[in-house]
Amino acid sequence: MSPTRSTRTEPEKSTGAATAASRHPVSRRRLVGAAGAAGAAGLLAGGASGAAAAEALRDAPPAPLTSIGANGVPFHGPHQAGITTPLQAAGHFAAFDLAPGAGRKEAAALLKRWSATARELSEGKAAASGTGSALDAGPASLTVTFGFGRTFFDRTGLAARRPAGLAPLPAFSADALDARRSDGDLWLQIGADDALVAFDALRTLQRRAGDAAVLRWQMSGFNRTPGATDRPRTARNLMGQVDGTNNPRPEDPDFDGHVFVPADAGQEWLAGGSYAVFRRIRMLLDTWDHLSRERQERVIGRRRSDGAPLSGGEETTPVDMNKQLADGSLAIAGDAHVRVAAPESNGGATMLRRSFSYHDGYLDTGDGPVPDAGLLFVAWQADPLKGFVPVQRKLDRGDGLSRFLRHEASGLFAVPGGAREGEYVGQRLLEG
Amino acid sequence: MSPTRSTRTEPEKSTGAATAASRHPVSRRRLVGAAGAAGAAGLLAGGASGAAAAEALRDAPPAPLTSIGANGVPFHGPHQAGITTPLQAAGHFAAFDLAPGAGRKEAAALLKRWSATARELSEGKAAASGTGSALDAGPASLTVTFGFGRTFFDRTGLAARRPAGLAPLPAFSADALDARRSDGDLWLQIGADDALVAFDALRTLQRRAGDAAVLRWQMSGFNRTPGATDRPRTARNLMGQVDGTNNPRPEDPDFDGHVFVPADAGQEWLAGGSYAVFRRIRMLLDTWDHLSRERQERVIGRRRSDGAPLSGGEETTPVDMNKQLADGSLAIAGDAHVRVAAPESNGGATMLRRSFSYHDGYLDTGDGPVPDAGLLFVAWQADPLKGFVPVQRKLDRGDGLSRFLRHEASGLFAVPGGAREGEYVGQRLLEG
Repeated sequence: MSPTRSTRTEPEKSTGAATAASRHPVSRRRLVGAAGAAGAAGLLAGGASGAAAAEALRDAPPAPLTSIGANGVPFHGPHQAGITTPLQAAGHFAAFDLAPGAGRKEAAALLKRWSATARELSEGKAAASGTGSALDAGPASLTVTFGFGRTFFDRTGLAARRPAGLAPLPAFSADALDARRSDGDLWLQIGADDALVAFDALRTLQRRAGDAAVLRWQMSGFNRTPGATDRPRTARNLMGQVDGTNNPRPEDPDFDGHVFVPADAGQEWLAGGSYAVFRRIRMLLDTWDHLSRERQERVIGRRRSDGAPLSGGEETTPVDMNKQLADGSLAIAGDAHVRVAAPESNGGATMLRRSFSYHDGYLDTGDGPVPDAGLLFVAWQADPLKGFVPVQRKLDRGDGLSRFLRHEASGLFAVPGGAREGEYVGQRLLEG
Repeated sequence: MSPTRSTRTEPEKSTGAATAASRHPVSRRRLVGAAGAAGAAGLLAGGASGAAAAEALRDAPPAPLTSIGANGVPFHGPHQAGITTPLQAAGHFAAFDLAPGAGRKEAAALLKRWSATARELSEGKAAASGTGSALDAGPASLTVTFGFGRTFFDRTGLAARRPAGLAPLPAFSADALDARRSDGDLWLQIGADDALVAFDALRTLQRRAGDAAVLRWQMSGFNRTPGATDRPRTARNLMGQVDGTNNPRPEDPDFDGHVFVPADAGQEWLAGGSYAVFRRIRMLLDTWDHLSRERQERVIGRRRSDGAPLSGGEETTPVDMNKQLADGSLAIAGDAHVRVAAPESNGGATMLRRSFSYHDGYLDTGDGPVPDAGLLFVAWQADPLKGFVPVQRKLDRGDGLSRFLRHEASGLFAVPGGAREGEYVGQRLLEG
């Protein structure tokens, strides 16, 4: 089919996670985000950081319902919002290309407009040019994160300052990439705990692009609604699997080293920034759902019910890669996803995965409709060559899960450090 | 419309889990839903009904966050769930056609399977054939509502029992209907406050269709996340307008008469049931958003900020259709949506509008991308000839809003009364 799909040029669709208390707007933030952006937290009541924040998250009592709208995530800080922010219920991704004739000056003006708009919206102020659909709601943990694609540097005459990390990703055998839905000069990640707030932000930012940039592609995704589960930190994906258990955590001593570009890496505008790898990964759910739960679990290496590794323990128990079953076989199969993706299988390579699920109706395969659904995969890392690239190379060769996946779109973006008060995102590049 | 506009939706997603707090699953339901389905409310703590429930809703303290997952809506009752249930954050609509060769017997078996599955899921039990994506979450106010299209009665040999209300809708001048995304033998409305729960229900029900029915079309939508706003009963749509103010309310004395088919209408299986008119209404947002706020407000007849009629007062103040401004012009313009759609303009015709917004990315018009976004309009009524049809006829001729809308898909479905304990939806038709 599906008629549902046929009129669309771009994918779509949307809805995930929070904590806070009382009705004082923005008096408390969700603490994982707070931990990651502690220095930024002008709005953060306490100075919680690192391990303390993570602990607080686990033990925090459920917050009242109205905090979902009142929660705000600071726009300014050493890192952009939306990287360590807890997953939101609704997300949009959009790429823009600079318009013909637009260069560095127009890009700078655009980033200035966009930053001002993103700040306003993340404080719950309705933009003058807004749609009105966010009225009545608070900021609902809105974040907007901006990234620059490889081509951005050519278009702005800044090719000499293009960071090494933006080298094109290698081709992988499982790729079936659609160039029209890949790459782009500029990349936006929008997340909020309310779908109308997220829509308003997307539309307002698109309109404020004015004549400077043209939408290239746009996709929408979702995660759990805050409060729909007591599970504290990990998400579920559309395969039904707990997703994100092995993510680096803000309280890990080497968290920043894995996720954020260090200040001494040579490009001041990128200090405190990150690289985002974005992939639209369609899940072949019709095939997957026909496997028994036991076979699904062997493919992943974890129990579906609670995410515990098949080597024993509970979700957060370290995976014992050598554990043998009574018959001498490995508890974690040689091609289990959890083994092939593990840092210890990849020379310590790791990344912060922070994805949204998507569901864009159904595709007509000629053999009946199959869900056009899966993961809008987002991975954050200080260096793609020490994060996504080695892990995906390994997965591409040896992951039992890969036959249930199709990578349909891809992008790699350099994400500047957070804007300081009075600054816009990317200013140190564009005016530096 | 468009019903769209006046889509004064119904008792919107309230912040109002009224009763206890804490974590006893399903000990508290949101009370507007409870009021509408009071007889059904085996799970309702008190016997609140009508006005009392509405009052409780307005005054209720915010419910704890975790109630979003724990909230359950009873499957059994005099009416199907999902009609008077407060709007949920995520929704799916799907139509199925009976498979070639399938008839009444297969339809009965299908409805039996689907009802059993819908009941399990709405109690928060993961179906054995489920995707796993709802694990960890509670029922999250999941509802599944089943309807029968005109063709269903031919396919099942029940044409003689097809109710008069299923006469084809007239053509309207603003229609640009896509037949492949319209109609269908069977119609499902799925709503939940968590997008993964809603997805799991859609996919599980589709898989349980087995060989009996084939997906015809499917669309997805959204509304505010519970707790993202304090606004108690009305929604916002993507035009930024408060939507649903003029909906009939469960506490109105003639609510049931407008919404539910009476027991003496001649078809026992339809008693307590309703007719659903479903329309995919694309909003021409690029055009709309270029109007000034003042012009937008004149088109609607209400203030954007708070939904108050331009004749004065606040949102719930009755519209004064005769109010004149200082210059002698009408405060509510002759073609204002609120005037043309009003029951008093349509011989008292009214319906319960309970819609979801949708956003399916962008359409390429050749002149740049325009949002493929708008309203998945759903109107509930005891008789379409006294609800949607006269109102839409009037709107089609005289509504200033209609030039900003395109009706792209349409369906009319007879929605059986609720299943009693031990019964499945439609049993009294299929086995009667």
